[in-house]
Amino acid sequence: MSSLKRLLVGEPLRTERLATERLTNPKALAVFSSDALSSVAYATEEILLTLFLAGSAALNLSLPVAFAIALLFFVVVFSYRQTVFAYPTGGGSYIVARSNLGLLPGLTAGAALLIDYVLTVAVSVSSGIAAVTSAVPALYPHRVALALLAVAILVAGNLRGVRESGNLFSAPTYLFIVSTLTMIALGVFRYATGTLAPVTAPVPPPAVPVPLTTFLILRAFASGCAALTGTEAISNGVQAFHEPVSRNAAKTLVWMAVLAVTMFLGITFLAHVLGLTPQTETIISQVNRSVFGSGALYYVTQAGTMLILVLAANTSFADFPRLASIIGRDGFLPRQMANRGDRLVFSNGIILLGVLSSLLIVYFEGKTHSLIPLYAVGVFLSFTLSQSGMVIHWWRSRKEDRQWLTHALINGTGAIVTGVVFVVIAVTKFTGGAWVVVVLIPVTVGLFLAIRRHYDAVAQDLRISLETKVKPVDHIIVVPVAGIHRAVAATMAYAKSLGPEIHAVHVSVDPAETEKLKAKWEKWDPGVPLTVVPSPYRSLTGPLVRYIDGLQRKEKVKFVTVVIAEFVPRHWWQFLLHNQSALWLQAALHFRPHTAIVSVPFHLKH
Amino acid sequence: MSSLKRLLVGEPLRTERLATERLTNPKALAVFSSDALSSVAYATEEILLTLFLAGSAALNLSLPVAFAIALLFFVVVFSYRQTVFAYPTGGGSYIVARSNLGLLPGLTAGAALLIDYVLTVAVSVSSGIAAVTSAVPALYPHRVALALLAVAILVAGNLRGVRESGNLFSAPTYLFIVSTLTMIALGVFRYATGTLAPVTAPVPPPAVPVPLTTFLILRAFASGCAALTGTEAISNGVQAFHEPVSRNAAKTLVWMAVLAVTMFLGITFLAHVLGLTPQTETIISQVNRSVFGSGALYYVTQAGTMLILVLAANTSFADFPRLASIIGRDGFLPRQMANRGDRLVFSNGIILLGVLSSLLIVYFEGKTHSLIPLYAVGVFLSFTLSQSGMVIHWWRSRKEDRQWLTHALINGTGAIVTGVVFVVIAVTKFTGGAWVVVVLIPVTVGLFLAIRRHYDAVAQDLRISLETKVKPVDHIIVVPVAGIHRAVAATMAYAKSLGPEIHAVHVSVDPAETEKLKAKWEKWDPGVPLTVVPSPYRSLTGPLVRYIDGLQRKEKVKFVTVVIAEFVPRHWWQFLLHNQSALWLQAALHFRPHTAIVSVPFHLKH
Repeated sequence: MSSLKRLLVGEPLRTERLATERLTNPKALAVFSSDALSSVAYATEEILLTLFLAGSAALNLSLPVAFAIALLFFVVVFSYRQTVFAYPTGGGSYIVARSNLGLLPGLTAGAALLIDYVLTVAVSVSSGIAAVTSAVPALYPHRVALALLAVAILVAGNLRGVRESGNLFSAPTYLFIVSTLTMIALGVFRYATGTLAPVTAPVPPPAVPVPLTTFLILRAFASGCAALTGTEAISNGVQAFHEPVSRNAAKTLVWMAVLAVTMFLGITFLAHVLGLTPQTETIISQVNRSVFGSGALYYVTQAGTMLILVLAANTSFADFPRLASIIGRDGFLPRQMANRGDRLVFSNGIILLGVLSSLLIVYFEGKTHSLIPLYAVGVFLSFTLSQSGMVIHWWRSRKEDRQWLTHALINGTGAIVTGVVFVVIAVTKFTGGAWVVVVLIPVTVGLFLAIRRHYDAVAQDLRISLETKVKPVDHIIVVPVAGIHRAVAATMAYAKSLGPEIHAVHVSVDPAETEKLKAKWEKWDPGVPLTVVPSPYRSLTGPLVRYIDGLQRKEKVKFVTVVIAEFVPRHWWQFLLHNQSALWLQAALHFRPHTAIVSVPFHLKH
Repeated sequence: MSSLKRLLVGEPLRTERLATERLTNPKALAVFSSDALSSVAYATEEILLTLFLAGSAALNLSLPVAFAIALLFFVVVFSYRQTVFAYPTGGGSYIVARSNLGLLPGLTAGAALLIDYVLTVAVSVSSGIAAVTSAVPALYPHRVALALLAVAILVAGNLRGVRESGNLFSAPTYLFIVSTLTMIALGVFRYATGTLAPVTAPVPPPAVPVPLTTFLILRAFASGCAALTGTEAISNGVQAFHEPVSRNAAKTLVWMAVLAVTMFLGITFLAHVLGLTPQTETIISQVNRSVFGSGALYYVTQAGTMLILVLAANTSFADFPRLASIIGRDGFLPRQMANRGDRLVFSNGIILLGVLSSLLIVYFEGKTHSLIPLYAVGVFLSFTLSQSGMVIHWWRSRKEDRQWLTHALINGTGAIVTGVVFVVIAVTKFTGGAWVVVVLIPVTVGLFLAIRRHYDAVAQDLRISLETKVKPVDHIIVVPVAGIHRAVAATMAYAKSLGPEIHAVHVSVDPAETEKLKAKWEKWDPGVPLTVVPSPYRSLTGPLVRYIDGLQRKEKVKFVTVVIAEFVPRHWWQFLLHNQSALWLQAALHFRPHTAIVSVPFHLKH
């Protein structure tokens, strides 16, 4: 077990190495941006799918809608850029909302983000594997197994630690960026020189188109907003950058926005001039084939798209554990979330994310389209809360900061816009599945509060005045005796070193055996009388617990120490050959108040 | 959990009720004979299947072969009748072979029988469910689940206890006996009056028949010998009869033989005079339809056949746990096999048999024909060993018993005949699957010997002279301290009551926290200095164990007591909110010699 773990995650790292486990900007871009970048692979298609409901002519609106989303993207990015400087130790929506808006908005943002991280892993891995199985249809029946394997690889990679994941994930991210930018550049060049033509015939529009209302256009806009998921990743992970952390994080954030918006607008522009319609083949694949033909460059670009979709999940593996550790340190999640494992990463959060997203993949049978409606609701709720929080932040710092009003206006615009988008997404996708997330967020907040209430109550229980003096307690010692042998002799000798009042007790299942034992005990005479407790139902623990109850009442002593001889065999399989009465007794006495259980090991030589 | 158990197996019974849990002869017939009786449902077919390989004419040999098997049946039954009187406390093949032939033959017989009991359950339940799914083909895809459900019902029924299983299983057994005897009587009457005709047309014989050699006839005989499996059941269970146990068991044994042979010969006779050939419809169903037509009586008889096939497995549930308990008491299987559960039955054996046969059913996908070749090899090996043992038994008692030679001749004949049958079965079925059992028997015997060797070694380790005096041991006390709170105060107070030399130790993961703790400790001053052990890899157990190692070397004391504060939450889910360091420490220290672990519970109020 231990050596398997070493092989998978590597040697343990000393705590002092924590500060040196930082990422260069290009690696940070790969680790934190794959979610946001990969969204461009389907954002255009989401817009076209919605507009197409109103007929082919409506598709002309795709460019204005895409420009609006690009604008929104920059508003959000500049808003988060301010957060990165204002919160250099890492300012995710949870921290910003909590410190400026108060506890409940903070927890709501935290819950929304945690849920969306789990969905990001499930959606991205499923659609990445769907891309693979579209290329190799024979793998389709194994898609759930493949998706679980991908999650397992992500878990293992992230357990190894943050620097290694940077190396692991740089190549596919840059493959995607370079191949997609090349495709757009060549596409625009061929369009300018009049040599670009679509490879697919347009599909006919719906027989009964819906009216092109403002609501439909807003819905198309909302659908395209999936492109913005993952934008907050960098602001959560400021601490993973090299010093100066804020400046490096801000630079990387702008780079990410420029790359994502360029690719998103480029793909949408080419889809528009090619007159593409949404069909079985994805929009990005249609653009790709129209530009590159069906040669090697097409496959390289498709492979890059597939890989980045799977790796988009990695953003969540960098972010979910970090956010869970912050919430855990605040006492709203189990404290173990804040423990750093062997490799200095938050192992428990990584494992929890792996388990939850695997359950979603298994439940939805690895089908992306069932998961999509649940997606992005949480992200925009946390955007809105975070940016509203930033407005309060600037208002509070209005005396030190002369530019506070500019800052507040940027964040205020972001808050209003993302708030509107949140409402539009929640309303238009509600019946399709968004209701699950709308229900789950308050439930999660309730869980946070219950956990914190427990910790507070425990802290209350445990609080002690430093004036309290520590005095020895009075206790009686009970030694269960099964027979007379060296293990019992060792246990009796040990018990005698604990205190003067020892009660040896034998639970009698077989009266004939008990008589023999009593005679032998008297002959042996270990200095303690043997009490016999009959067990008509052949149970060991029941009669023993009742005997201890009676003894404690009679002796009027608060504390009982039960000394149990425990066989420790040399080989694990030998466990099966012994009754494990020690374990049963420990389990039975575990919940008894004022009862200390001592297990005295007797190591078998054979 | 506990109330679910009560519902399934009933209230616990007092040990004194053991003697009264006996069976009347008719109930004992139902409990112990279903295996032997149910074999007649397929024994005729097995003979015909083998003979048919040599063409239609060879089928005429079915009656002589059946008579030979009937003769063998009576030889075996009269042999076991002698065993029942010679071993009134229960004389299975294991006991008889062990006490007369020696250890290895005894263990071989025991291993052969245990393996065959598991096979009996798998074969009988699978073929019973196959009978059900033939009638209701829609259930076929669920046959494994149905078979596992049947095994689960048998396990629950047998855990309730022996008298209840008698009630539970009497009705189907007697339904089968009465309906089959009625079918035979009416069939013979209709044959005598010339009104009996087959309902099925004979299938054509194989295009290239094999020659009708003596070997083939012996093989047909061997195949039909499946009828004899389960004959030893009564001799194993003599103790379950009313007094006088031997006389009642012997009577029931003869009744079983008369019933089984009557039904077997009757079915074979009718199949012969009807000129039936083995085909998709079973022979017993063809006979049944020819006699009764396709009316209600046909279905009643078929239902009886189906039920008794499933209940045949119950013989093993009466016998396997009993034999395992005897072998366990002798130290060749885990001693827990000899423990009587709440309802005075050998619960562990019942559960083990249920698990093993369920694994076989799952592995062979509930297909009877894959299991059949493994079957009956073990039974005839144990017959041979048991009857050889009886010959020695009579030779040894030749001075007291004037009739010893008659007895010895009966058993000697049985031993030789069953020995020949064993060799024939093993040789003719070897490549078909019998080799698995031939390999498994010595492996099981090896396991028996390894277990006994372990118990002997442990007994050696544990042996103590009654002259040994019990003196208190010297020990140092180590208290791991995570912080200063009431649980630690309670643990320190408890530790102080154990001895004067206490070492409080704090494993430091965070140096800043440690400094605070040290200052607070000095202020509190519980009378014990606090040692700080750094943990650069953030592990709790490793540094603590190394500290204890060093302390023990320095203090030159043999024994160490580690006192651990353990949080006991009020609700199970609260376990998830605590680090469980107590459990990790216990696990880490469990294998350390001379280390007693005390867990002092701190019960959380919330």
